[in-house]
Amino acid sequence: MDIITKLADIFSTFPGIGKRQSKRFVYHLLLQDKKFIDNFIASVTELKKEIAVCAECQRFFVGRETEKHICTLCADSQRDTGALMLVEKDIDLENIEKSGAYKGKYFVLGGVVPILEENPEEKIRADALVKIVEKRKPKEIILALSANPEGENTALFVQKILASLQKKLDFTLSAFGRGLSTGTELEYSDADTIKNALVNRTK
Amino acid sequence: MDIITKLADIFSTFPGIGKRQSKRFVYHLLLQDKKFIDNFIASVTELKKEIAVCAECQRFFVGRETEKHICTLCADSQRDTGALMLVEKDIDLENIEKSGAYKGKYFVLGGVVPILEENPEEKIRADALVKIVEKRKPKEIILALSANPEGENTALFVQKILASLQKKLDFTLSAFGRGLSTGTELEYSDADTIKNALVNRTK
Amino acid sequence: MDIITKLADIFSTFPGIGKRQSKRFVYHLLLQDKKFIDNFIASVTELKKEIAVCAECQRFFVGRETEKHICTLCADSQRDTGALMLVEKDIDLENIEKSGAYKGKYFVLGGVVPILEENPEEKIRADALVKIVEKRKPKEIILALSANPEGENTALFVQKILASLQKKLDFTLSAFGRGLSTGTELEYSDADTIKNALVNRTK
Amino acid sequence: MDIITKLADIFSTFPGIGKRQSKRFVYHLLLQDKKFIDNFIASVTELKKEIAVCAECQRFFVGRETEKHICTLCADSQRDTGALMLVEKDIDLENIEKSGAYKGKYFVLGGVVPILEENPEEKIRADALVKIVEKRKPKEIILALSANPEGENTALFVQKILASLQKKLDFTLSAFGRGLSTGTELEYSDADTIKNALVNRTK
Repeated sequence: MDIITKLADIFSTFPGIGKRQSKRFVYHLLLQDKKFIDNFIASVTELKKEIAVCAECQRFFVGRETEKHICTLCADSQRDTGALMLVEKDIDLENIEKSGAYKGKYFVLGGVVPILEENPEEKIRADALVKIVEKRKPKEIILALSANPEGENTALFVQKILASLQKKLDFTLSAFGRGLSTGTELEYSDADTIKNALVNRTK
Repeated sequence: MDIITKLADIFSTFPGIGKRQSKRFVYHLLLQDKKFIDNFIASVTELKKEIAVCAECQRFFVGRETEKHICTLCADSQRDTGALMLVEKDIDLENIEKSGAYKGKYFVLGGVVPILEENPEEKIRADALVKIVEKRKPKEIILALSANPEGENTALFVQKILASLQKKLDFTLSAFGRGLSTGTELEYSDADTIKNALVNRTK
Repeated sequence: MDIITKLADIFSTFPGIGKRQSKRFVYHLLLQDKKFIDNFIASVTELKKEIAVCAECQRFFVGRETEKHICTLCADSQRDTGALMLVEKDIDLENIEKSGAYKGKYFVLGGVVPILEENPEEKIRADALVKIVEKRKPKEIILALSANPEGENTALFVQKILASLQKKLDFTLSAFGRGLSTGTELEYSDADTIKNALVNRTK
Repeated sequence: MDIITKLADIFSTFPGIGKRQSKRFVYHLLLQDKKFIDNFIASVTELKKEIAVCAECQRFFVGRETEKHICTLCADSQRDTGALMLVEKDIDLENIEKSGAYKGKYFVLGGVVPILEENPEEKIRADALVKIVEKRKPKEIILALSANPEGENTALFVQKILASLQKKLDFTLSAFGRGLSTGTELEYSDADTIKNALVNRTK
């Protein structure tokens, strides 16, 4: 396999990138000068060196191996340790932070559990989750998962994992509310959304 | 103006129909036989005759002028008269009925109140709403409006209209819950949806 | 079946209109006043009365039954009777006229011949085509058909129909040129378009 | 600027990649193991080493610096040296090769000349083009450019560059034919496409 095809194959594993666009990426690189390529390679190399995984919330964060191995959000004493929000991935966490709505702590599950998955414990960071809950002893654990079958299945699996701990530590297990999201029109809503919007109606 | 253009102009007032498609409609009619056209005209004529506006919920319903002028939903004694759900239009009501989630009564506002509208009382059936509330004396009025600026502005205007009645009759005024609608992914949610999903989280 | 469903069913036969939109059309009509509905019905009624089919090119044209039963394009003595362009439908003719590129006569086939069609002669106005060719004796017949399988199959069938006439009358049978259409990018062109663009290259 | 943002910025220069997707690329890399990253970096490094620019057609080709510095297409003695096809970029050449329609030689311009460009000679490989034409002395030069304003403007500029050479060498300058491309329907064609399809009609 020649190098153009080889590199295109790597790019085609990138999220949302098909065969045709992956090839355009290779030609894009070919048209760049040495400085661009050097900078690109240096950045990718640096990425893995500079980025650590937070020992507590498991998210990626910038910071060469520090003493405590924890990210600024986990280290921030101003944030409410009584609440622990579980998200699927780093970008979800970033998006929730951007909303400014939440002031507690996070934990990144690192994936979702697909329906009928045989080894669900390999799909999310189950052990690390149990450890952080035992350590932090939050009053509430909030499931911030997408409103789709994988999200719901992941929620069920997390509940199972935390069941015995919940008895011992007596925390509340809550989930992001369902209802009308911004822009939803009643004419086009599905039955589930309508049911949830009705049940969760605000008074 | 020739008749092709004239009829195309009428079709172009139909929801979602542009100039080009309206002309295709005319050519579609030209290609039909006499029976189709006669049936089409008869159906449009019949529509206005057979369809009445319900004296209570204001929705369209099939039924030549009956004694009571009310639709089957309003006449149905099995439905909970303690709840009155306000919707923008007939199709919203139909969609909510299809979900099977609600067993109370409805009222069709007949429109929304745009932001900065100078004559909001002309945009929705304000008088008929006041009358039905005075007559039915519901325990709860549920605003089932779309999650967009017009929906929110309409909610504010309805609240204003019903303010004095609420003091007198002491009903609850609620609104469809905001949160994640089916299919919403956290990565792509806007700040409002995240805030609402957090505030309305289920425990 | 109630009248709302009945009329929605009729609208759902309109080009490009699905079940949901057809119902929105009915509600749109329900919201209109008597004057709109009367005007709409009158226009549909008038359409069939005022529109005639041209005895020569077979297109629809405005004009109550005139003496000669021919449209303005066919009656126009300024247009080149030596050229006869065959199109699938009225809208194609209109679009070609709008381009201002053609000054000859037209004939509307009234349809296309699908691949493997068993009764191709029922799909297009075969008899009327033969008659007009015999009457006009054009020097060139131009096939202005869409560049898709149906268009190509229709061209083959028209060639067959006209084969014996062509021997007798000795006209040229030409077809719209294939190549790059406006906006076509080489990166995304299919093999056929590239071949045709190369073969039909201009010098 | 942290390394995540820095690398995302680089990815956002890739064709078709916005800010959000560029960040997803970074997180995608973060989730990969060392082997993937090493392979990725090695491939990018290799790309620039292994890929040379053909001294004749200017396209990228695999092959460490060879004696002659020319690609297999330019070296192929079976191909017709009497024809030289000018394309904008490598992917266009690849797509035309895939069609199997052309058996002559190529030259990659390396870009297009935008309308009103002040330094057109910097946008395409003008000097290399003149050199290859002087060396090869083709009988025909075929402009295979996209059917859009940039393509047409580039064609005008190439004509200007080659004008004196054409007088001396007496080659034909042709351009990819315009007309209906695969899938084009007459109903939706623009005036230019109709005009070209009529002018370039095949008999």
